[in-house]
Amino acid sequence: MTSELLYSRILHKGTMLCVGLDTDVRKIPECVRQGRTAPEAVLEFNKRIIDATQPYCVAYKPNLAFYESLGPDGLRVLDKTVEYLRTNYPDQFLIADAKRGDIGNTARMYAGTFFETFDFDAVTLSPYMGSETVAPFLEYPGKFAIVVALSSNPSSADFQLSVKDGKPLYQVVIENCMKISNPDNMMFVVGATKVDKLKEIRSFCPDNFFLVPGVGAQGGSAEEVIANGANSNGGLLINSSRGVLYASSGADFAEAAAKAAAMTARFER
Amino acid sequence: MTSELLYSRILHKGTMLCVGLDTDVRKIPECVRQGRTAPEAVLEFNKRIIDATQPYCVAYKPNLAFYESLGPDGLRVLDKTVEYLRTNYPDQFLIADAKRGDIGNTARMYAGTFFETFDFDAVTLSPYMGSETVAPFLEYPGKFAIVVALSSNPSSADFQLSVKDGKPLYQVVIENCMKISNPDNMMFVVGATKVDKLKEIRSFCPDNFFLVPGVGAQGGSAEEVIANGANSNGGLLINSSRGVLYASSGADFAEAAAKAAAMTARFER
Repeated sequence: MTSELLYSRILHKGTMLCVGLDTDVRKIPECVRQGRTAPEAVLEFNKRIIDATQPYCVAYKPNLAFYESLGPDGLRVLDKTVEYLRTNYPDQFLIADAKRGDIGNTARMYAGTFFETFDFDAVTLSPYMGSETVAPFLEYPGKFAIVVALSSNPSSADFQLSVKDGKPLYQVVIENCMKISNPDNMMFVVGATKVDKLKEIRSFCPDNFFLVPGVGAQGGSAEEVIANGANSNGGLLINSSRGVLYASSGADFAEAAAKAAAMTARFER
Repeated sequence: MTSELLYSRILHKGTMLCVGLDTDVRKIPECVRQGRTAPEAVLEFNKRIIDATQPYCVAYKPNLAFYESLGPDGLRVLDKTVEYLRTNYPDQFLIADAKRGDIGNTARMYAGTFFETFDFDAVTLSPYMGSETVAPFLEYPGKFAIVVALSSNPSSADFQLSVKDGKPLYQVVIENCMKISNPDNMMFVVGATKVDKLKEIRSFCPDNFFLVPGVGAQGGSAEEVIANGANSNGGLLINSSRGVLYASSGADFAEAAAKAAAMTARFER
């Protein structure tokens, strides 16, 4: 997918929402869990959440941690979730939230995993080990690396505000990555809990999409994110995970998720 | 395992070697691949490498990327590799080389994955998102978080040499992690290709084990690593992956691996 095509879908649907599939079997409503193994329950829950929310979002983002925690069967559920999306809703942009980051030959294996073994459009990466950890992901036409620049969590300040050449580390990361990529193969993670920084980052990174976590459970506001972070091409995917998935713990969980999704990250131009 | 017990095993065996199980099915000798599916070949290769090398090492470190690339069946091979080690060589220290790093609730899922779903003793972590990403791994008695401080790859300088409070980022990472941990639940990754830095890091981090990649294929010398990085408690696990696994591509691959392992990271006090 190109960033232009992603933007046309955002305009068409009137939303920048990405639904984070952080599916925790312990939080799945009893009515879905009953009579199912943990992996079966996760898959069924995902399907019903996807069916209910797909009119109100342009992207889905399974969080690898939640699938790996179920072992090999969890990866099978991940695979089936991707297949379900590709078959039924081929317009959706699919992000593997994996925060991977390792040296070249290992990074190459991870790129193959997420872009070939699994059929994702994008994967999130942690930049600590340098540009070498990002480069192999840029070799797949139509696929995106999404590099964590400034995260939404409280301890993001521990290391991301270090300084190099007079610039904060998150800026050094973004500028370094911009040099080896283009807006059709690179996005950045910028947290919703830092809207002043979002505006600042947009000033030196005008063209790339930002994946913005931190709306909802973490306290960020989608309206403020759009006001401070949108560009001429939309330029934002605003993620909500827990706020959508667990909007209700009862039998009405899918309707409640749809309602929450419909209210989050609306966008009109 | 405690760091004291790990040291007693290093002394007993006279080696600091950790064998990295970066098993790439394309590099497995033809005689092992023949008549086997890719996952079967990886498992068989691992077993024969383990049987041959176990007298000459104290730890094994499967690299998650290589198993995930085979999808769900790859995680099953990982599980069976761990089970094979636990059953046959229970003295070995088992490290999941995963370089994970995410916010609190996701980090908690990853800790459960590596310490409960799979039975590893330790997991490597990427610190970019701050101390919150490390803390959940410290709640398991006898288990270790291994945080990447200064990696062995050429692009490690891109971001790890940024400065905070007058200190390089790798030092800030180590000192921050030392505050919330102890040498019995925390180790650090320090690359073998930076022996001067290894000595410097040992001066402000005297007691923790360092996991040292970069020996062999990446050009570092185990002797220099030991001369610059050992402490009174041994304090080093020196990793070799490709140099051991692929010492020969013929039918003698296991004997060649054993020979390579026997010559790497010998240690006597």
